[in-house]
This record gives sequence, C-alpha cells and structure tokens, in this order.
Amino acid sequence: MLIAELESRHYRIPLPTPMTDSTHGNMTHFEVVMVRLRTQNGIEGLGYTYTIGQGGAAIRSLIEEALKPVVLRKDARRVEAIWEEMWWRLHYVGRGGLASFAISAVDIAIWDLIGKHDKVPFWRLLGGHSNTVLAYIGGIDLHLSLEELLAQTRENLARGYRAIKIKVGQSHVREDVERVRAVRELIGPDIRLMVDANMRWNVETAIRTARQLQEYDVYWLEEPTIPDDVAGHARIAQEGGVPIATGENLHTLYEFRQMIQHGGIAFPEPDVTNIGGITNWLRVARLAHAHNLAVTTHGVHELHLHLLAAIPNASYLEIHSFGLERFILNPPQLQDGVMVPGEAPGHGVHFDWEALAPYLVAPRETETAPFVATA
Amino acid sequence: MLIAELESRHYRIPLPTPMTDSTHGNMTHFEVVMVRLRTQNGIEGLGYTYTIGQGGAAIRSLIEEALKPVVLRKDARRVEAIWEEMWWRLHYVGRGGLASFAISAVDIAIWDLIGKHDKVPFWRLLGGHSNTVLAYIGGIDLHLSLEELLAQTRENLARGYRAIKIKVGQSHVREDVERVRAVRELIGPDIRLMVDANMRWNVETAIRTARQLQEYDVYWLEEPTIPDDVAGHARIAQEGGVPIATGENLHTLYEFRQMIQHGGIAFPEPDVTNIGGITNWLRVARLAHAHNLAVTTHGVHELHLHLLAAIPNASYLEIHSFGLERFILNPPQLQDGVMVPGEAPGHGVHFDWEALAPYLVAPRETETAPFVATA
Ligand SMILES: [Mg+2]
Ligand SMILES: [Mg+2]
Repeated sequence: MLIAELESRHYRIPLPTPMTDSTHGNMTHFEVVMVRLRTQNGIEGLGYTYTIGQGGAAIRSLIEEALKPVVLRKDARRVEAIWEEMWWRLHYVGRGGLASFAISAVDIAIWDLIGKHDKVPFWRLLGGHSNTVLAYIGGIDLHLSLEELLAQTRENLARGYRAIKIKVGQSHVREDVERVRAVRELIGPDIRLMVDANMRWNVETAIRTARQLQEYDVYWLEEPTIPDDVAGHARIAQEGGVPIATGENLHTLYEFRQMIQHGGIAFPEPDVTNIGGITNWLRVARLAHAHNLAVTTHGVHELHLHLLAAIPNASYLEIHSFGLERFILNPPQLQDGVMVPGEAPGHGVHFDWEALAPYLVAPRETETAPFVATA
Repeated sequence: MLIAELESRHYRIPLPTPMTDSTHGNMTHFEVVMVRLRTQNGIEGLGYTYTIGQGGAAIRSLIEEALKPVVLRKDARRVEAIWEEMWWRLHYVGRGGLASFAISAVDIAIWDLIGKHDKVPFWRLLGGHSNTVLAYIGGIDLHLSLEELLAQTRENLARGYRAIKIKVGQSHVREDVERVRAVRELIGPDIRLMVDANMRWNVETAIRTARQLQEYDVYWLEEPTIPDDVAGHARIAQEGGVPIATGENLHTLYEFRQMIQHGGIAFPEPDVTNIGGITNWLRVARLAHAHNLAVTTHGVHELHLHLLAAIPNASYLEIHSFGLERFILNPPQLQDGVMVPGEAPGHGVHFDWEALAPYLVAPRETETAPFVATA
C-alpha cells in the first residue's frame, strides 16, 4: 500500500454566525486544511485539521514542505513508523503546537487509506468496542442572553439531546451560577449538564465557582484555567468538587500524561485534528484507560464518533463541528441521544467539494485538480 | 513609539559543512526568518529566529498573517501587552512549538526598536549586571573520529576557549566515555568540559553513562533524553550525579517551570529565538534565579551575549550560530574565554544583506525593498 501522491488544500470559511467564548473572543472564520493521499493503485485517503482562524497557511506549509517527503513512497500500513518520522522531522520546531495539527491531517489520511484498502470502517478497524456512542451538544453560547440560552436549550432537547454543555466565564461568577441554575431547572435532573470555561479563570475563581456549581449536578467542568497549570487543575479538581475535562489545547501525549498523572483531569478530551491524528489519539485513549478514565472529544464528531465507538473507555461525544457540518454530505444522525458510526470504509465522510470551492485559499493554481472530484 | 511597518523575510542557507548530532541526523541547511519593524519616525528594529531546516515558511506565514495585525499601530514600549496578545492570538494552534518561534522574531525586533529609540544596548537596557560573559564552544562533532575530535579541541584551545562542549550519543556508551576521557586528558583539569546527548538516550542509559562520566569532571550533561520526560530528567540528575542542562527544545515558560520544579534541570538553557523572544527569555531567567539556578543559552550568541550580561544568574554562553555568523559583519570577539557585549543600541548586530540575498526564499517580489539597505 505504497503512498504515491499527497495533495493538500487550505480553506478559510466564514462562520454562519460569529461565535464567542470567554477566551478566544469573537470568531468570524474557521480554517480547514485537507490532505488527500493516493496509492499507486488509486486508493485514496482523506485527512483534515481545522483552526479557529489562524495558522492554516502555516499548517499547509508544514505538510507540503516537511511531511510530504516523509510519507511519499512509504507503506501506509507502517503508520507508527511514519508517525515517528513526522514527529522527529518537526521536533525542533514542534513538540505539539502547529506541528501536531499538520501531523494530524496526514495521519488521519493514512488511516483512511488503510480503512479504504481493507474495506473496513474506522470504528471496526480501531477496535470495534460498541457501535453506539453517547453524544452531547456543545453550545457556543456565552454571548446569548439567559432567555436565548434557555430557548436554545429547549431546541436542543427537542432535537433529541440528552446531554448539554453550556459556556461559562461571564464577568461575574454570579451570572454563571444563575445560568447553570436556570438551565438545570429547565432540563430537569435526568439530562446531563456540562460547563466549559475556556481557560477564563484563575485557580481560585475556578474553585469558588465549582463549589457553587456542585448543587446543580454538573457532569464536568471543562478548561477551568490555562492548560499549562497542571498543579492548578489538580487543586480545582480536589477543592472544587466537580470533575475536570480538558484537552482541546493539549497537543502531545506527554501533556496528557502530566495532567492525568497529577490528578488534574477526570475526562481527557483529545482532539484527533490537533493531538497528532488517530495514531496519537489512540495513545491518549489507552493511557486514559490505564488510569481508569473515560475519554471525551472536541469538535469534528464525524471522526470522533468512530474513535469513541472503537474503544472501551468512551465518555460523551461532543457534537460541534465549527461550521464544517454544512459541507458534509452524509453527516451522522442523532437518535435518542446516541449516534451510530457508519459502515463505509475508513471514516466515510463525504465533503461537498463544490460548496467548499469558493473558500479555497491555496493552492490557487489547481482548482480543477482531482481533489475536487474524489474522496 | 508606534510601530508603523513590519516586513519579514525567509532565508534558506546551506551549511558550510553538513552537521550531525545524535538525534537530528544529517543537517544540510538552516533557515532564518527575519523581522524588521519601523516606527513612524523611521526608527528600525530587527529580530530573527532560525530553524534546523524545517518550518521557516510556516513561521513567516504566522508572522505575516497572525502577528503583523497585532503589532501594527501598537506602542513598542508596551511590549508585555503585545506579547500576551501574540500568545493568545496563536494559542489554539500554539502553546509553544512554531508559534513561539514566530513570536520570538517579532519580540526581539520590538526590543531592538526600544534599544535603538533609547540609544541603549540590550545588555544595559535589560539590567546591565556585568559586561563580561563566560563563553564555551559548542562543537557539533558526533561524526568526527576521535583523532579529528582531539584536533578540533586543540584548535579551540588555541582560539582562547576555556570551556568546551562535545556531543555524545555514539552507538556504544563505551565510545562516548572514551571520547570524554581523551578530551579531558588533552585539556587538563582547568578547562570546563560539557557534553550534549541531544535527547538520544533513554533514562537508564543516561544514568549509566552519567555515572561513568563523573570521574572526568563533566560540568553538565545536556539533553540526556526527550524534554517531555520531566520525571526522567529528575532521576538522571539524582542518580547519574552529573548536573543536567536542557531547554533548546522547551518553548514555553511553563515547560521550564515543570522541569525546574521537579528537579530535572541544573542549567536552564532557553533560546531567545524559540522561547518567545526576549520578553519570555527574561521570564525564564528570573524563574531560574528564584530557584538559585544559573542560566546558559543555545545558539545565536550575538544576542544571548547581551542577555547573559544583563542578568545576575548567568552561566556560560554557548558559542555556536549554526552558520549564521558568516553573515554577521560585526561578530562579538572572544578574549581569554570571555565575551563582552557591544555598546551599539539594541542588539547591534549588522548583517551582510548582500551576502544573504542569494538565499532569500520569500518574499520573492521585493528583493529591492529597504530591508536590504538598512538595519
Ligand atoms: Mg471546550
Ligand atoms: Mg544542545
């Protein structure tokens, strides 16, 4: 299964409505970097990563200049060796960060190639633990009034969600507590409720707020403070009394190991598009398993659905694709709070390439390349 | 001191002779990304970062697309605020890695602007502790035969060095020990001797080797294993009995804090071109000071000379600019094992822009821009 071709594309896409969270401020665009691999026999694999508006061109540059020479003429089946070579080729400018985004896109494409070649869907290829995955809706709703937040929550219940996450990190802790109280009152005791602070707080504020949220049965508190503060996370977990989720901003296996080892995390949340692809996502999931922890995810649920279905220690799948779902022709469907991965080979995601075309940033000169017609 | 213009350039430069170390293999090129800032009054600041061959185009892309909008129209004097804004703008794709390289080049240029504006050299601007800095020569010599290594060592002694570092990480520990023994025998007891393993070893090999190196009075053992293994570093330090230096592959303040806090490091080695510039280099240096640790450096000695001169906790300056010294018109000179920073404002480094011109990768269209004539 020799990899004969690699093609990459950088898209910059306006968000349907600008989004807000407590840390990243106003977001108007997101970026997608796509990688297509092709074997000598014409089998194709597709991988991708995304950003919240910055770094897409840099990611594509790393893929084209540093990673392409690594993967071409390699046997896709030797994905662990390819991964190590990508990691070390970018090590001096890497160890996480943008390098992990670039590696992710390529690694996902390699696994897709394997799945397509073997005619096996990801979830079976990677372990096949269970074909039902609990899902929650991740709202980006910090900017909503309480009334709008409750209306959105009602809508989410009507859509079949049995688990809901809201953003916290308002100017006053009191407001956050009031919003959580009101949502809990609306949804009743049987719906799961998570909150996400997007790193907004210092450790003391996080502990104080967590204590006040306890009575509303919060399933987890996500990213209470900066991901660099491992000891702070451990204190928040112990003194705040609400389980901690974090990981969308951790980009190496070792960062997860630190956080897990020091008791800073109850729900590791690796994102396959920025942890280094499926190869490294599985390493994090296995590390979590060895620590008796269940794994949740961040974004791109069309991919993570397969990954959580594959492993024995799956927690909830976050439903939230940052606007990318508009371009997916066969999005997975929710039924009674559960999603079921498809049986098409690989990840089985089909993009609407024509709808994406207007947002292509680079390469400009190849708009008619096979990339548009395939995958 | 409003910043009115930002220009960046990406150079890819062949090494005079290919270099080798135990981890990065054969290196044939290095890259430099230059950033020039100009105020409305025409004062200019120059900053730069470098890579060992990969990632230069990605770094320039981050500077042009993500960081330029942050710095333009800002008061250069508010460098701490600009730094935070750069950090958070790249946070989702960042927290170290390539983002820190890009921030470094811009931050150094901002500090140069301040120095030029105030007509004060860096070493005085940043604290002015002492204008003499102890220097050592960092050899990239893993590929040399023992005979060649000894010849190079003799040459270095003749050039006035009183401290010498050699690479370790040969196929057999025995060879490493033999090389260290032979070099110690040649230089006698009064010359400092350091060794650098470039992350080659696992923890057990590092401990075993360190124990055998003890009798040759090794001043520090650099990068014995991967920088992600904090607990491993602590074990090597305690059980190996040779002080540990590391830091060229740590790209955030928090990574240094982890390593220092857990006893994994005796000589922190932040590189101003990849730790996030002068602003973050100083944070690491102050953190080290609070832990009673002396700081060493990595590469670009023309810049680090000023930084070590500024602070009270300076250890040895590494002399090694990865081929960049060929393009510096006024390189600092060594005398009796010591270097003295210049009194020109800012960093005072003058590049030979005409000699660099053939290696310009991007932008291609502006070869006659003012960048060539100034700074
Ligand atoms: Mg989140
Ligand atoms: Mg070194």
